[in-house]
Amino acid sequence: MSELLQALAETLEQRKSAAPESSYVASLYAKGLNKILEKVGEEATEVILAAKDAETSGAKDAVTQEMADLWFHCMICLAHLNLSPDDVLKVLAERQGLSGLVEKASRTPSN
Amino acid sequence: MSELLQALAETLEQRKSAAPESSYVASLYAKGLNKILEKVGEEATEVILAAKDAETSGAKDAVTQEMADLWFHCMICLAHLNLSPDDVLKVLAERQGLSGLVEKASRTPSN
Amino acid sequence: MSELLQALAETLEQRKSAAPESSYVASLYAKGLNKILEKVGEEATEVILAAKDAETSGAKDAVTQEMADLWFHCMICLAHLNLSPDDVLKVLAERQGLSGLVEKASRTPSN
Amino acid sequence: MSELLQALAETLEQRKSAAPESSYVASLYAKGLNKILEKVGEEATEVILAAKDAETSGAKDAVTQEMADLWFHCMICLAHLNLSPDDVLKVLAERQGLSGLVEKASRTPSN
Repeated sequence: MSELLQALAETLEQRKSAAPESSYVASLYAKGLNKILEKVGEEATEVILAAKDAETSGAKDAVTQEMADLWFHCMICLAHLNLSPDDVLKVLAERQGLSGLVEKASRTPSN
Repeated sequence: MSELLQALAETLEQRKSAAPESSYVASLYAKGLNKILEKVGEEATEVILAAKDAETSGAKDAVTQEMADLWFHCMICLAHLNLSPDDVLKVLAERQGLSGLVEKASRTPSN
Repeated sequence: MSELLQALAETLEQRKSAAPESSYVASLYAKGLNKILEKVGEEATEVILAAKDAETSGAKDAVTQEMADLWFHCMICLAHLNLSPDDVLKVLAERQGLSGLVEKASRTPSN
Repeated sequence: MSELLQALAETLEQRKSAAPESSYVASLYAKGLNKILEKVGEEATEVILAAKDAETSGAKDAVTQEMADLWFHCMICLAHLNLSPDDVLKVLAERQGLSGLVEKASRTPSN
């Protein structure tokens, strides 16, 4: 899965040089940080609503979809600020005492 | 990095059988979904504030820290609903036309 | 100002019997609670962004506009659940030791 | 009810010259805008959760309580930025074609 976040980060990086009207991501960059953060706030709310509905109905598919939306816009926010998902995952790894995994991941190609 | 999210998901799974007073994560599970979702909302707000401060000051470290907090509580939310980060990453991959990577990741061990 | 919140609450109540395509508020009711709550979350995020921008630029007009949006959607949420702004103001008054004012307000017409 | 929002705004104004350790509001001012906005975000999330629970259980009391918390922290945010609830209510009135009420309210004392 690591390759996926990496590939997604690369795609988001490439969108920085695309024309705003050429893609959703390029248009968000052009609108600027506030618009990107509005989306982060919106998607967080939608995750919360989907999770509450899952609690009542048992239907979890919307949670997965909304969480994907939230993470996607988090990745756009990171890219816009020239940060990478690796920066975030490193913090998570250090806190969880899993930093060995991070080191290994950057040393060895993953396949 | 894939191993990291996987390892984190496993740690969160194990916390389900821990005593509430034994860890922060176990105490959140015991408090229930609302408390977990309050944390998701809180951390989303803190990401937004940190990103706005980064825009003004150039200091990005708080963004990385708050984003790690947000993703961590997203992972707790997923675990509480018996969902995995892989479910979310698969959705992201499909949307980005990167599903080949997901398939490969589940076929080959990553090292 | 009391008359304003009261008049707004009455307008929102009337919209409940309007056709969804006849007004923004009627269309929100028709979409249901999740849509209304999405708007509450969205507008809260926009208040936060406008306040951060005001801190940097000194321009406060957007804060007032976004706060009006937030309160407006809060009032729609209350109306949808058959609650009134008075219910909320009473709680505020009791907490602040201002319940005398609430009692007086319901006893005497305000002009 | 107008007197209530006005009285609350005056109380919040007075807290600006109070020692941070003397009251909750004074301590929030001292912590600064980010802390105040974190509370706005938190309380918005709690309104959303309470409203979802009300939808399922019919119990509305928590909605009123959380909405009071949200409006209270909105008022603190306004006071911190030297704005008043009247500024917000005027915007609402203009949008709703109710500006006559606002004008009347500022011309005539409300009792």
